[in-house]
Amino acid sequence: MSKPSFAPRAARDVGAFDRACDVAVVGFGIAGACAAIEAAEAGADTLVLERAAGGGGTSANSGGLVYLGGGTPVQRAAGFEDSAEEMFKYLMAACGPDPDASLVAPYCEESVAHFHWLAARGVPFGERFFPDAHEPPGDDGLTYSGSEDVHPFCEIARPAPRGHCARVMGPKGGLLMRALLGAATGAGASVQTGARAERLVVEGDGRVCGVELRLGRELLRVRARRGVVLASGGFIYDEGSVARHAPWLLRCKAKTGTEHDDGSGIWMGAAAGGATIRMEAGDITLPLFPPVVLKQGLFVNAQGQRFLNEDAYFGRSGEFALLHQGGNVFLVVDDGCFGRPVHFPVEVAAVGETIAELEGELGLPGGALQQTLAYYDEHAARGEDPLFHKQPQHLRPLDRPPYAAIDLRPEHFVYSAFTLGGLQIDARGAVLSHAGDPVPGLFAAGRTTSGLSKGGYSSGISLGDGSFFGRRAGRRAAEEGQSPG
Amino acid sequence: MSKPSFAPRAARDVGAFDRACDVAVVGFGIAGACAAIEAAEAGADTLVLERAAGGGGTSANSGGLVYLGGGTPVQRAAGFEDSAEEMFKYLMAACGPDPDASLVAPYCEESVAHFHWLAARGVPFGERFFPDAHEPPGDDGLTYSGSEDVHPFCEIARPAPRGHCARVMGPKGGLLMRALLGAATGAGASVQTGARAERLVVEGDGRVCGVELRLGRELLRVRARRGVVLASGGFIYDEGSVARHAPWLLRCKAKTGTEHDDGSGIWMGAAAGGATIRMEAGDITLPLFPPVVLKQGLFVNAQGQRFLNEDAYFGRSGEFALLHQGGNVFLVVDDGCFGRPVHFPVEVAAVGETIAELEGELGLPGGALQQTLAYYDEHAARGEDPLFHKQPQHLRPLDRPPYAAIDLRPEHFVYSAFTLGGLQIDARGAVLSHAGDPVPGLFAAGRTTSGLSKGGYSSGISLGDGSFFGRRAGRRAAEEGQSPG
Repeated sequence: MSKPSFAPRAARDVGAFDRACDVAVVGFGIAGACAAIEAAEAGADTLVLERAAGGGGTSANSGGLVYLGGGTPVQRAAGFEDSAEEMFKYLMAACGPDPDASLVAPYCEESVAHFHWLAARGVPFGERFFPDAHEPPGDDGLTYSGSEDVHPFCEIARPAPRGHCARVMGPKGGLLMRALLGAATGAGASVQTGARAERLVVEGDGRVCGVELRLGRELLRVRARRGVVLASGGFIYDEGSVARHAPWLLRCKAKTGTEHDDGSGIWMGAAAGGATIRMEAGDITLPLFPPVVLKQGLFVNAQGQRFLNEDAYFGRSGEFALLHQGGNVFLVVDDGCFGRPVHFPVEVAAVGETIAELEGELGLPGGALQQTLAYYDEHAARGEDPLFHKQPQHLRPLDRPPYAAIDLRPEHFVYSAFTLGGLQIDARGAVLSHAGDPVPGLFAAGRTTSGLSKGGYSSGISLGDGSFFGRRAGRRAAEEGQSPG
Repeated sequence: MSKPSFAPRAARDVGAFDRACDVAVVGFGIAGACAAIEAAEAGADTLVLERAAGGGGTSANSGGLVYLGGGTPVQRAAGFEDSAEEMFKYLMAACGPDPDASLVAPYCEESVAHFHWLAARGVPFGERFFPDAHEPPGDDGLTYSGSEDVHPFCEIARPAPRGHCARVMGPKGGLLMRALLGAATGAGASVQTGARAERLVVEGDGRVCGVELRLGRELLRVRARRGVVLASGGFIYDEGSVARHAPWLLRCKAKTGTEHDDGSGIWMGAAAGGATIRMEAGDITLPLFPPVVLKQGLFVNAQGQRFLNEDAYFGRSGEFALLHQGGNVFLVVDDGCFGRPVHFPVEVAAVGETIAELEGELGLPGGALQQTLAYYDEHAARGEDPLFHKQPQHLRPLDRPPYAAIDLRPEHFVYSAFTLGGLQIDARGAVLSHAGDPVPGLFAAGRTTSGLSKGGYSSGISLGDGSFFGRRAGRRAAEEGQSPG
C-alpha cells in the first residue's frame, strides 16, 4: 500500500464542505484535549477529530506524570522549594542539545498556573512525595522524574521533584485523560471518533481553512473557520519514517505510543508549509530501575570503561548507551547489588568469582575492567566518584563476589523509544514556516511538534508540553479567526 | 531582513515567462556542472543559474578529492586492489548511521565508469600514491581519504585508497572545476551568473515547471519545460537554520563552504513537496594531522579516558570528540611526538614533567590519566592497543618527558563543519516526497541533498556524490520531459 501523500487540498477544489466548525482539533490525546478545552471555553465551535474509537491516545496509556514546578502546592506541601528560574535552568540543561528558550521560558513561568488549571479541570493530583523511583507505583503524587538530583544537574539548578501525577493506585495516565476528555466535552467541544485526517485544506493564499478526512469509507471535508490544531502524536509507529529520520530508534525493542503515532499530523503540517525540526531526536529509555539497588553497579562500555553516573535518569542512560556507546554496554554488579529489574527481564551476559573472570567472560580487553573497578572501588570506599559523581548513597566498593554483568545491549534488553521531532511552533502554538512566519490558520502541540525537549528528556515533559502548548494552540486558534478574516 | 519564504509560485500566477529552457540547473558547483553536462549532452536546452559571479562554488575551493574506487586505473597503477563490493562495505560502515544502500550501491558499481567520465571531461587525475596524509600537498593523485586502513574499517573491508585528485601543485578543487565548468559550456549549456533563484514555479498538479529568480533588482521567471535540478549546496552559512537543525555545528569555528551555502535549494525543494531528511547530520573535522607523528599521542576526555583510535580519519575524530564527548577532549603527547599541526595553530592546555603533573594541570580526576597511560604504555610496548586497535606503526609508550596536552576543545581549536542533510533523492536523482514518490519535474544532487553520507564522512564523498548523482539528475531531467508532457 502506498503511503498517503498528505499534500494539501486546495479550497477551490472543494465543492461544498460536509461540515463546518470554528476550530478543528486533530487528535484527542492530552494536547488535543487541552486545545479543545481552551478553544471551546473561548467560545469557538470546536470539533475534535480522533482516529481511534475513543480519546486518550498515548497519553492515556502513559505513566501519567506531568512535568510541573516553580513551587506548585504539591511541591510546597512536600517541603520542596522551587522557582521558575531553577526549573528553567534545569530544563535548558536537560532538554538539549540546544532547547528552545522561547518555549521553555513561558512553560516555567506559568507552570504553577498550569497546575491549577489542570486541577480545576478535574485532575486529582496526589500530594505525597514518593522518594524511590521515577514513577510512583502507589497513590503518591510527586517524584523525581528526571536527573534533577544527580550530577551534573544538581550543580546546575537547585534540585526539586517535578513529576506530578494523579492520585490513584495503578496506571495514572488513564485517570488524567478521563478528567481532561471530560473537561473538553464539558466545555462544549464536539468529538468525532473514527475520523482519519488525511489532508489540510488550504486557501489560495496559503491559509489553512479545513481538514479532509476519512470516516469509514467516506471522504469528508470539514471547514475550520478559525483554524486547525494538529495534535496527533509523533511518528514512532511509522517505521519507514523512523528509518529515514532517526534510524537508531529502530534498535529499541519497545515503542512508547499507539499505532496511530505514525506522524500524519507532522506530514500534513509540513506539506502545508510548516517547518519540521530536530527530526532525529527521540527519547531513549533504558528502564533498568527499579530496583534502586542496581544504581550501585557500574555501566561499562566495550572498552571496560565507565561512561555515565549510574544514578542518571533512565532516559539519559538510554541516550548515552545507545547514541554515544553504540549500545555496547553492560551493568557490572556484585552480590550486594544484584536485583531483577521490575519492568523487564534481563539477561546475564557473564558471571565470575573475580572481576578478571568476568572481564574474560565478556571478552573485554584484558585488564581494562579490572582497572576500572580498582579505580572505582578505591574512591567509592571514601564516598567519592571523581569520574562521574554518582551520589554518595549509591557508592560502595563492589567487593562482594560473585560478580555479574547484566547485558544492556539493545538486542538483549528492552529499550523503549518515542520520537521528539516535529513541526516547529512558536510559544503561542502557531506552526512556523522555514522563514519563521506562522502558517496562517495552523497550530500544533504535543509530539506532533518539536517541543520542550530536543533530545534530553525527563518523564512528564510530553504530557507537560502537550497540555501547556495545546492550551495555547487552542486559545490562539479560537482568537485568530475573530480578527478581520 | 526577513528571510524569503521559498514558497512555490503557482504557474497560473505567472503571466508570461521571461525565458525558457528544457532543463534549469540551480547552482554551478560540481553537482550543477555535471547535471548540466549530462542534460546538454542528452540534447536538452540547458540553463544554469548561478548566484555568484562565476561557477565553481564550494567545489572549487575544496581540496579537490573525489571518492572513487572499485579498481580505477589510478588504483591499479599504484598497486592497490579494489572492488565495488569492498568499496560498498566500507561506505556502508563509514557513512552511517544507516546510509542509504540504494544510493551507495550504484555509486560503487559505477565508480570506475564515473572515473573515466570525469577524466574524459578533462579532469587530469594524478597517478601517484601519496602515503602520508589525507590531502596530497604535491601533484600526487591518490590517497587514503578516510578510515579505510584503520580500525574498525580495515577489518570490515579490504583497505584501498580512494581519494582521487587532479595532478596539480597546490589547491586541486580549482583545476577540477575548471575542467567541469568548461565541459558544461562546451556541451552547450548556457550559464546565467548573478542569478539568485528564490522559488520554484509549480503547475496545479504539483509538477515543477520553472524557477523564479532575481537578477540584480529584476525578478525573472524561467520556464523549464523538462525539469529543474537543484544543486546549490548545503546550509552551513545559514546560522539560523544550523541552530534549528544541527546546533552542535555552531561550535565549529570554521565552515567548509561559501556564503551561498544557505540552503536555499533545500528550502525551495521542500516547499514544493520534497522531503528533507537527516538534517542534523554534518561533517565535523578535527584537522589535527598532518604531522602524522601526532597520531602517536592519545585522545583523552574529561575523565582522562581514551575514546577513539587516534589514527582515525579526522572527520571521524571530530565527530567523536564533539558529538560523543561534548568537545571536552585533549591530545596527550610526549616529547617524542609533539608537532605543530600544519593547518591550524594549537593551544597547549598543560605541560608537565610527569603524567601526574599533566593530569593535575588539566584538572582531570586524580589518577585517571595516569591509569590510562599506564595501560596504554604497557600494551604499546608490545605493539598492541587492545582498547582501540590503533595501527602498530603509531604505537609506542609515551615515555619521553616533558608531556603536553593539546587543547582540542572547540573553543580552543579549529573544528571545521558543513551540513550533510537535505532533500531526499532516489538513485536517479529525483527528489522524493514524504510518501516516497518523485516530485514531478524536480531533481537534485550534492549537498542540497542527503546523499551518500548520513553523518560519517570520508574526504571526497561530496565531490563524489555531487558529480555522480548530479549526472544522473541532469540526464533524468533531460529525459523526463520527452515523455508525453
